[in-house]
Amino acid sequence: MSQSYSLKQIAEFLGAKVQGDSAAKISGLGTLSSASSQDLAFVSNPKYIDQLAETRAGAVILASALADKYQGNCLLVDDAYLSYAKISAWFDKTPEAEEGIHPSACIDSSAVIGDRVSIGPNVVIEAHTKVGKCSVIKANTVIGGRSEIGENALIAANVTIYHDVRIGDRVTIHSGAVIGADGFGFAPNGDKGWQKISQIGGVVIGNDVEIGASTTVDRGAINDTQIGNHVILDNHVQIAHNAIIGDNCAMAAYAGVAGSTVLGKNCILAAGAHVVGHASLCDNVQLMAHTLIFKDIKQPGSYSSAAMPPMATADWLKNSVRMGQLNDIALRLKKLEKNQNN
Amino acid sequence: MSQSYSLKQIAEFLGAKVQGDSAAKISGLGTLSSASSQDLAFVSNPKYIDQLAETRAGAVILASALADKYQGNCLLVDDAYLSYAKISAWFDKTPEAEEGIHPSACIDSSAVIGDRVSIGPNVVIEAHTKVGKCSVIKANTVIGGRSEIGENALIAANVTIYHDVRIGDRVTIHSGAVIGADGFGFAPNGDKGWQKISQIGGVVIGNDVEIGASTTVDRGAINDTQIGNHVILDNHVQIAHNAIIGDNCAMAAYAGVAGSTVLGKNCILAAGAHVVGHASLCDNVQLMAHTLIFKDIKQPGSYSSAAMPPMATADWLKNSVRMGQLNDIALRLKKLEKNQNN
Amino acid sequence: MSQSYSLKQIAEFLGAKVQGDSAAKISGLGTLSSASSQDLAFVSNPKYIDQLAETRAGAVILASALADKYQGNCLLVDDAYLSYAKISAWFDKTPEAEEGIHPSACIDSSAVIGDRVSIGPNVVIEAHTKVGKCSVIKANTVIGGRSEIGENALIAANVTIYHDVRIGDRVTIHSGAVIGADGFGFAPNGDKGWQKISQIGGVVIGNDVEIGASTTVDRGAINDTQIGNHVILDNHVQIAHNAIIGDNCAMAAYAGVAGSTVLGKNCILAAGAHVVGHASLCDNVQLMAHTLIFKDIKQPGSYSSAAMPPMATADWLKNSVRMGQLNDIALRLKKLEKNQNN
Repeated sequence: MSQSYSLKQIAEFLGAKVQGDSAAKISGLGTLSSASSQDLAFVSNPKYIDQLAETRAGAVILASALADKYQGNCLLVDDAYLSYAKISAWFDKTPEAEEGIHPSACIDSSAVIGDRVSIGPNVVIEAHTKVGKCSVIKANTVIGGRSEIGENALIAANVTIYHDVRIGDRVTIHSGAVIGADGFGFAPNGDKGWQKISQIGGVVIGNDVEIGASTTVDRGAINDTQIGNHVILDNHVQIAHNAIIGDNCAMAAYAGVAGSTVLGKNCILAAGAHVVGHASLCDNVQLMAHTLIFKDIKQPGSYSSAAMPPMATADWLKNSVRMGQLNDIALRLKKLEKNQNN
Repeated sequence: MSQSYSLKQIAEFLGAKVQGDSAAKISGLGTLSSASSQDLAFVSNPKYIDQLAETRAGAVILASALADKYQGNCLLVDDAYLSYAKISAWFDKTPEAEEGIHPSACIDSSAVIGDRVSIGPNVVIEAHTKVGKCSVIKANTVIGGRSEIGENALIAANVTIYHDVRIGDRVTIHSGAVIGADGFGFAPNGDKGWQKISQIGGVVIGNDVEIGASTTVDRGAINDTQIGNHVILDNHVQIAHNAIIGDNCAMAAYAGVAGSTVLGKNCILAAGAHVVGHASLCDNVQLMAHTLIFKDIKQPGSYSSAAMPPMATADWLKNSVRMGQLNDIALRLKKLEKNQNN
Repeated sequence: MSQSYSLKQIAEFLGAKVQGDSAAKISGLGTLSSASSQDLAFVSNPKYIDQLAETRAGAVILASALADKYQGNCLLVDDAYLSYAKISAWFDKTPEAEEGIHPSACIDSSAVIGDRVSIGPNVVIEAHTKVGKCSVIKANTVIGGRSEIGENALIAANVTIYHDVRIGDRVTIHSGAVIGADGFGFAPNGDKGWQKISQIGGVVIGNDVEIGASTTVDRGAINDTQIGNHVILDNHVQIAHNAIIGDNCAMAAYAGVAGSTVLGKNCILAAGAHVVGHASLCDNVQLMAHTLIFKDIKQPGSYSSAAMPPMATADWLKNSVRMGQLNDIALRLKKLEKNQNN
């Protein structure tokens, strides 16, 4: 049932050199340990090279420098991981979305829908919204008024996009994501509680962006929240109102930026890394997992503020108490040093 | 297309004093740097005062004390941020929800629906549920049986409210939020795994509450989970079963409270701050970002247990190792001090 | 309206010994402090024993060892909490889902639907998907193609299950959960940004699993993401691509595991505990709240890497600065020790 390709075809697409039988047929992907004789595997991490001896893979994508480590069929490339990424779509078995608009979809008559779209059951598209050609919008997704989805988008099921959200081309948004909900803006009003600030800005998202499941991108308070091109967001990410996320940024699960944060280009936030409101990161900053940033970062590089290394909880309890004494410890040490020097 | 107001009209609503041309027309909001000559801007943070010189705003909301810092049109008030918050709704361009019940909505015949509601496409309302007058329920939202939504609610698209949830008046709930899912209650049952505890309590939410996108409020195990009046919850917040959240509390993104936690009034939890099960905070406690509370807090004030300040990862690695040696360091320091004193 | 049971009936089900009136009628559950004379309460925590004197409960579930602490009606058992858990379902008032398929559900003609299911309004089930007998799928849930749901499942409203997801029997999935979205797999591609890796694996979930609201379980990159039997996941949990979660694991809110993580059996991750990619935990590991694991854990036991204990923010600021000096402090201490010993 699944389609197969010759190693030669794949090599041509990847610009790879074939070592072995270029007529060998490949019909799927596998890991070195799971691959069958019809599967293509890859090695990008040198620590897996030993597994090459045991693999039953039909062929392996390999860095040219490792060509002599493997006698079976292989595709020699500069960057094995990138080559695997590029070819992976050939073996994607995702059921194709049917072209057309499902009769149960509820699309306002003022909406402008491009050619060759696929709009699933119970999709709701409100007034004056545009959907670009070849875009796929899966079941039960809701898109608010005056929003725009570019071409070749893939909006999964149960996504919510509010009004006045502008999304570029080739954007993927996964289920449960919410784009354009109100920013968390309230003014304290004494004993009357919190005075809501109407969030009248929108959201602008660039091209080639991927947004994970249950990720939220809030609309702006006055101006728009902005996400650049080629940004990738994992699941459970939070982009607060008026944040500006530079091109090529990547944010892992639970990473979040507070209101009016600015991330430069090519920043990478590991899981649970947060940037507090109004702080900026310059280009090319990496934040390690669980890092909390509350001031501007002006030098590229890798930063961390995570807690201690994991240890037995019994040890942690002893050490943790000492953290509350750290300033005292430092002052006492200084005094000792002074005394000794006298 | 957009409506405009004179400075005089706005001043009357805000109780502000006009300095400049009270006939000037305002049709939108802007920041000092983005505002056009038709826009109203505001300064609440003294560090932005310098921007007043450059702004093209039609008028600026300004604290009376700063009146002499600006020669253009302005509205002088006690609290510029609060005044901006109050007037913001005048310039909200959110498309108005159409009154009426969409024919595709699926509403049980026993449900009681108030006057002048707006119920969107594919909304599902189960048996014996009540929706108060003037409430808006957007597309694809589901409300379980025997629940109650008060008046003037705004329940966004793709919200889920389970059965036996009681929600007050003027409550806003954003997309992806889930109210009334089962609390995480299981008893260990040896090698049979976990024995589910049926969560038979409900959820009670007060008036004037705002709940963010993808936020979850679990139902109670036996009694109800309770959220007071004027509580504001950001996105990705977690309220576990039987928590009690006092009036006017605010919780930022990823803030969460575990089972049976009690928050007093006016508590503020910054991003990622968590309170472990059965702990209580008294009134007026603030938790800084990433703080973890595992004992009762009985004194009002600001608390933190966040990790270290951010530093270059190379430095972090060196310092982090020392955290596992902290107790040893403290003991050695003590010994040194003792020796020196002998 | 609600059904009642005699203490004798309940005792037989639980294998409990009745002390007091075995004919007493019970129609609900209560806490010691909230229970009425028709309610059954329980004491599992010795610190609540004092409340026994004041309770108005119709009967109390009590550990046999505490039999002489209470003169009222009680059920004597080995494990009061487990017994309460087991009986709780008798008093569950959740409205029963109506058997049958709602006419608005959109079910592909190739789907195979078992007997006595309940499929709610606007449910979408794509091609070649199977739903086992007696399963309940609530309103507005979407299930992708070629997926399988076992028997006696409870899939709440607004859940999204992608294609090629296989779920066992007696599984509960709460609203907003997303099963089978793409793993976060991208290869860096220089100035072209990130090259998407098609996620062609699926998800396999065992029997008797519970998945909380807004929890995400991503599909595998090549092989499947796997969740064992009797696993319980709270709200906002993240299971990344190709993770393997052993039987009986429990993960609290915001706990997450990155790509290709392996958890052994019976692991417990408290709130916000994260395991970084490719790390493994052996069986019987507990991670305290906010712990971050970046290396394999090979010994069972409890681990923590949380930050410091909570303290007044003013104190935290002083101590926190010292954390960035810790390595220096340790080296200076060593030098002092050396000097003193000379």
